[in-house]
Amino acid sequence: MSKPQPIEYDDASPDVRAVFDDIKTSRKVKDVNNFWKYLANDPKTLRRTWESLKDVMAPGALDPLVKEMVYLAVSVTNGCGYCIASHGAAATKAGMTPEQFGELMAVVGMANETNRLVNGYRVPIDPAFET
Amino acid sequence: MSKPQPIEYDDASPDVRAVFDDIKTSRKVKDVNNFWKYLANDPKTLRRTWESLKDVMAPGALDPLVKEMVYLAVSVTNGCGYCIASHGAAATKAGMTPEQFGELMAVVGMANETNRLVNGYRVPIDPAFET
Amino acid sequence: MSKPQPIEYDDASPDVRAVFDDIKTSRKVKDVNNFWKYLANDPKTLRRTWESLKDVMAPGALDPLVKEMVYLAVSVTNGCGYCIASHGAAATKAGMTPEQFGELMAVVGMANETNRLVNGYRVPIDPAFET
Amino acid sequence: MSKPQPIEYDDASPDVRAVFDDIKTSRKVKDVNNFWKYLANDPKTLRRTWESLKDVMAPGALDPLVKEMVYLAVSVTNGCGYCIASHGAAATKAGMTPEQFGELMAVVGMANETNRLVNGYRVPIDPAFET
Amino acid sequence: MSKPQPIEYDDASPDVRAVFDDIKTSRKVKDVNNFWKYLANDPKTLRRTWESLKDVMAPGALDPLVKEMVYLAVSVTNGCGYCIASHGAAATKAGMTPEQFGELMAVVGMANETNRLVNGYRVPIDPAFET
Amino acid sequence: MSKPQPIEYDDASPDVRAVFDDIKTSRKVKDVNNFWKYLANDPKTLRRTWESLKDVMAPGALDPLVKEMVYLAVSVTNGCGYCIASHGAAATKAGMTPEQFGELMAVVGMANETNRLVNGYRVPIDPAFET
Repeated sequence: MSKPQPIEYDDASPDVRAVFDDIKTSRKVKDVNNFWKYLANDPKTLRRTWESLKDVMAPGALDPLVKEMVYLAVSVTNGCGYCIASHGAAATKAGMTPEQFGELMAVVGMANETNRLVNGYRVPIDPAFET
Repeated sequence: MSKPQPIEYDDASPDVRAVFDDIKTSRKVKDVNNFWKYLANDPKTLRRTWESLKDVMAPGALDPLVKEMVYLAVSVTNGCGYCIASHGAAATKAGMTPEQFGELMAVVGMANETNRLVNGYRVPIDPAFET
Repeated sequence: MSKPQPIEYDDASPDVRAVFDDIKTSRKVKDVNNFWKYLANDPKTLRRTWESLKDVMAPGALDPLVKEMVYLAVSVTNGCGYCIASHGAAATKAGMTPEQFGELMAVVGMANETNRLVNGYRVPIDPAFET
Repeated sequence: MSKPQPIEYDDASPDVRAVFDDIKTSRKVKDVNNFWKYLANDPKTLRRTWESLKDVMAPGALDPLVKEMVYLAVSVTNGCGYCIASHGAAATKAGMTPEQFGELMAVVGMANETNRLVNGYRVPIDPAFET
Repeated sequence: MSKPQPIEYDDASPDVRAVFDDIKTSRKVKDVNNFWKYLANDPKTLRRTWESLKDVMAPGALDPLVKEMVYLAVSVTNGCGYCIASHGAAATKAGMTPEQFGELMAVVGMANETNRLVNGYRVPIDPAFET
Repeated sequence: MSKPQPIEYDDASPDVRAVFDDIKTSRKVKDVNNFWKYLANDPKTLRRTWESLKDVMAPGALDPLVKEMVYLAVSVTNGCGYCIASHGAAATKAGMTPEQFGELMAVVGMANETNRLVNGYRVPIDPAFET
């Protein structure tokens, strides 16, 4: 056996259940997503990741929708299929409209293109950007 | 000679000057950044890239600050030093506060981390994300 | 036809069979994995890749388990699904415990996160690391 | 101003100083690296990152040298110059020999190569790796 | 609903139909690929992407087969499954032989390997490459 | 000491000198590039990498200029500064014109853009590409 398997609530240790409960309460959902069920194989990483995400994604200087769209932009750049699906759903839940999604993808596409044009043309940083 | 060299306005062809003029007028700047001076080696790519960027970064369903922050998020993920410097400056000019920058980096960091946790644990997409 | 197809032993040329035989003997397996059956479309690349891998993954200053875990860490970072599956299996065969897998993923995740924090904050290399 | 600047101990808030002190004590060093001085611009991210790294890099099922080498492997794959320099130094401090570094790089190189051969040949996962 | 859905010709707006018609005429195909049906959710991005691709992939200083092989090389490096499938088909249609495909993959693999060896060994650029 | 250092011919072991001599003869150059001087820290990787590159980059079904341009495309996608500089020089030496370079960069840029549009729109592979 080498493929990781999900851990369901009923089979989980008290440590894992405590995290699952907090996720369900915080997000007002009946069950946690697969991501958490797989991370539950390592309770320490499960807890640390959840605590970190809860902090980082909380409303602050940036609102939750912007944060979800940034998360989606990174996931699209990295080609993480699961993350695109889950954060696409989260962004939609946070209010992303189809027009916003379209513009987000357009920006992500252009950024990935110009990042490489810069690399290829070996463009040096303008002195104005160094201060 | 194989290293690309920048093309300054005074040495540029009419085609290139027309694009440079439009950039300077649109952005209310006295000179264009190095990115454009290097792209000027290929006038067709210069024009296409500028026209595309002007469209994509214009205010729309997403405001310009959000677009600049997404651009920065992608550039940070890809490790493009020039793009991080130039779009960091652009985001600041568009109003990004240090607190917003801090939260942006925190989201970008977490997304890059969890993208790999998902890969490593081989997490399958939840059926709820497939509709 | 443009999709590559696997080449099975019975349909393989003597060159390809020789490599397949060496893989089967070296690894004490009855059949080679899909990776080799697809690479067999290019016998030169098949042989070169096998010879290189055999050298690189052999016990040396690093033991085989560490090498397999490093291979897995790279594959997770790149998001190569097949490689994560095959080197996850290989690492398990080489003795990786679930606890080691959990810690490996935690390190891979953190490295991907801090790599981007470094990019975003444009952190210059400390002089102490330059010697 | 848009380029992040480092925050030195003498200019740091009590929150930041507390983290710097913990880093200096834990690692038995006189000053913290640039990474921490730049992260100090966002005290919450500074603290969270330090606490996470301290946990993740602690001796466990994997020894610290293996963890540092995995960190280096990821950083090399992502092309993060600062991280390669700092974790190269950390791995050396943890006992990595030049022979081990050479083998580590060889594995990282081969993994990056075969990850792409797999992508290009569109190799499907063997059923044996799906359990 | 958060998962993007394809837009078929019969359900498309006049703007989208105009682009679909141009693709079908230019490429002499009866229907457009899924890529265009999904992009049709954002008619502006659909049009801009099609116009850009038509320009960039047209015969010029590089012939179409070389351009398709470069497209494939980038897609393999990024691990984009759809792009590998569609540009693999396009390269085959443009005349790529199995031998050329094999050599292309070998070059892509080696480049990905040596890119990381360079990163890991922190190789400075030779002065001869700076002019 | 943790930063790799170059090994010059005069300080090299007979094994390393033999590879250096072969590089100099094959490429008709007076000295080897920094890449080889750094790889010389690990004579086995030096030899394997040189032998592999010599095979892979030799004229075959693809001519050397196409191979160098593909190498450059991959290096630009990965953002490897040294590789962009060295393979840019090699491509120029092999005959790449400024027009070809411009078109190459345009293709690389578009491929990186559309790779992400595909990811973001979650485009499924057309059945026609699966055979």
